[in-house]
Amino acid sequence: MRAWAVDHNGDVASSSTSDRGMGKLSPADFPAALDAVATELGVGGSAADVLICGMAGARQGWLEAPYLDAPTDLRGLAAGAVHPAMPSSGLRVSILPGVCQRQGGENVMRGEETQLLGLASLMPGYDGLVCMPGTHSKWALLHGTRIEHFSTAMTGEMFELLKTHSVLRHSLNGPLDGPARDEGFSAGAEDGLSKPADLLGQLFRVRAASLLAGRGPDWCAGYLSGLLIGTDIAANRNRIGTDAVPLIGSAGLARLYERVLNMAGVKGQPVDATDVVLAGLKAARAAAN
Amino acid sequence: MRAWAVDHNGDVASSSTSDRGMGKLSPADFPAALDAVATELGVGGSAADVLICGMAGARQGWLEAPYLDAPTDLRGLAAGAVHPAMPSSGLRVSILPGVCQRQGGENVMRGEETQLLGLASLMPGYDGLVCMPGTHSKWALLHGTRIEHFSTAMTGEMFELLKTHSVLRHSLNGPLDGPARDEGFSAGAEDGLSKPADLLGQLFRVRAASLLAGRGPDWCAGYLSGLLIGTDIAANRNRIGTDAVPLIGSAGLARLYERVLNMAGVKGQPVDATDVVLAGLKAARAAAN
Repeated sequence: MRAWAVDHNGDVASSSTSDRGMGKLSPADFPAALDAVATELGVGGSAADVLICGMAGARQGWLEAPYLDAPTDLRGLAAGAVHPAMPSSGLRVSILPGVCQRQGGENVMRGEETQLLGLASLMPGYDGLVCMPGTHSKWALLHGTRIEHFSTAMTGEMFELLKTHSVLRHSLNGPLDGPARDEGFSAGAEDGLSKPADLLGQLFRVRAASLLAGRGPDWCAGYLSGLLIGTDIAANRNRIGTDAVPLIGSAGLARLYERVLNMAGVKGQPVDATDVVLAGLKAARAAAN
Repeated sequence: MRAWAVDHNGDVASSSTSDRGMGKLSPADFPAALDAVATELGVGGSAADVLICGMAGARQGWLEAPYLDAPTDLRGLAAGAVHPAMPSSGLRVSILPGVCQRQGGENVMRGEETQLLGLASLMPGYDGLVCMPGTHSKWALLHGTRIEHFSTAMTGEMFELLKTHSVLRHSLNGPLDGPARDEGFSAGAEDGLSKPADLLGQLFRVRAASLLAGRGPDWCAGYLSGLLIGTDIAANRNRIGTDAVPLIGSAGLARLYERVLNMAGVKGQPVDATDVVLAGLKAARAAAN
């Protein structure tokens, strides 16, 4: 869980990061956890407005905030919010909804919609694809504040699964950040970009390269990462125009996506993920008033 | 580990199945484990020839049997065998090599090469693609007893990984063999066949279908299975000719592959996996004499 206290000028007065997220809390635990964070941020006991986005609004979270249906205008997020009771403090809580898509590929997001509204606020009028790399990479077609369509690729989770639990773990057993990682990444990205339909087959190349060519864990980790990112980008390549694709995610991952986008002949533009969350929360609140 | 005692007429006199395979034995354990199986099969203490294929010849197995390099004639398997010592019995042991591929896609197999030699013996002159579905599905281009090229798809392992460890496990939590499994399988196979380059994105449809459309674990398990098999077949579709593709694997899995091959407009022909192993071991021995 990440939290920020924002003053009347819109500036961040204080912030907090903890592991007290949805995965560790039962519904009854949320009010006390939020009060604790408010105290830590210096707004405990006040009647501050609290805007929440992400998994707290999931069915397994605090209080379910029903999805908006894409295509939809993200300025409607606050109007779709739910308001859980805070029995022992004056905090006024709004949990923003996620967005679902029932036509053209069933899909769901929670949290990314707020970042997308923030991006629309920071880059007014942007019209095109946005990439949000991560555990579940989201690709959204944004038209101003409207989300027209989106998809989800299990790119990051697949890397972790294969590294931790699959037969490939034997090839990734050792220092993963060695000097050959970069070379492996390029080789994997090329294979992913050129043969995305053969991901199931190319994955096994990690093991073969380790057994036959003596590739070390650093090369293999780079290859696996590049292969997955290259495959992810190839699947979305024909929806990318001439504008740079905004990349919302951790700085390191956004740089890797930018590099592979360049290999595919298109441009990427890393955007700070915290900036767009904050801009999105502010824009959601402004749209509600 | 599976073992058969074969008499002078080539008939199976007795057989044995146990969990005492490579994964549970250190190199020093193999002789005693083999003696125990020989006793169980009624050939203990004899000077019987023992032919072994599979992971016992891997570097982490009993004694490494260096790979033959594809393309290669599989009648050379016995000539490439290694012969570990049996300190306390007269068994004469040959561990057959696997096959590797250094050009045109690094790859390795151990065990499947013996089944392929067996297929060549049961279907003399077969010239075309062979599919061996399983944890790691092998696709081999066979020309008589020659293996020209092969690839490995992590299809079966991917199903297990996603079912057990990924976010999709939440959608697969419950009875997987319910009435909707078949419908899910068809939907997944269609998606895999039509959009194999988008596997990373289509996987997430399992979760979305569960959250949005209320699909149960049986439908989701069917969809995941169909999606992976459809994607695997699509990646190999343009190497399939007009002959039926021999399918070597468990009967249930071979039937699923046959069904999806039919959806792709081609034919499959399940072949009993035990028959081809036995035929392969006999053919390897015959080629050595």
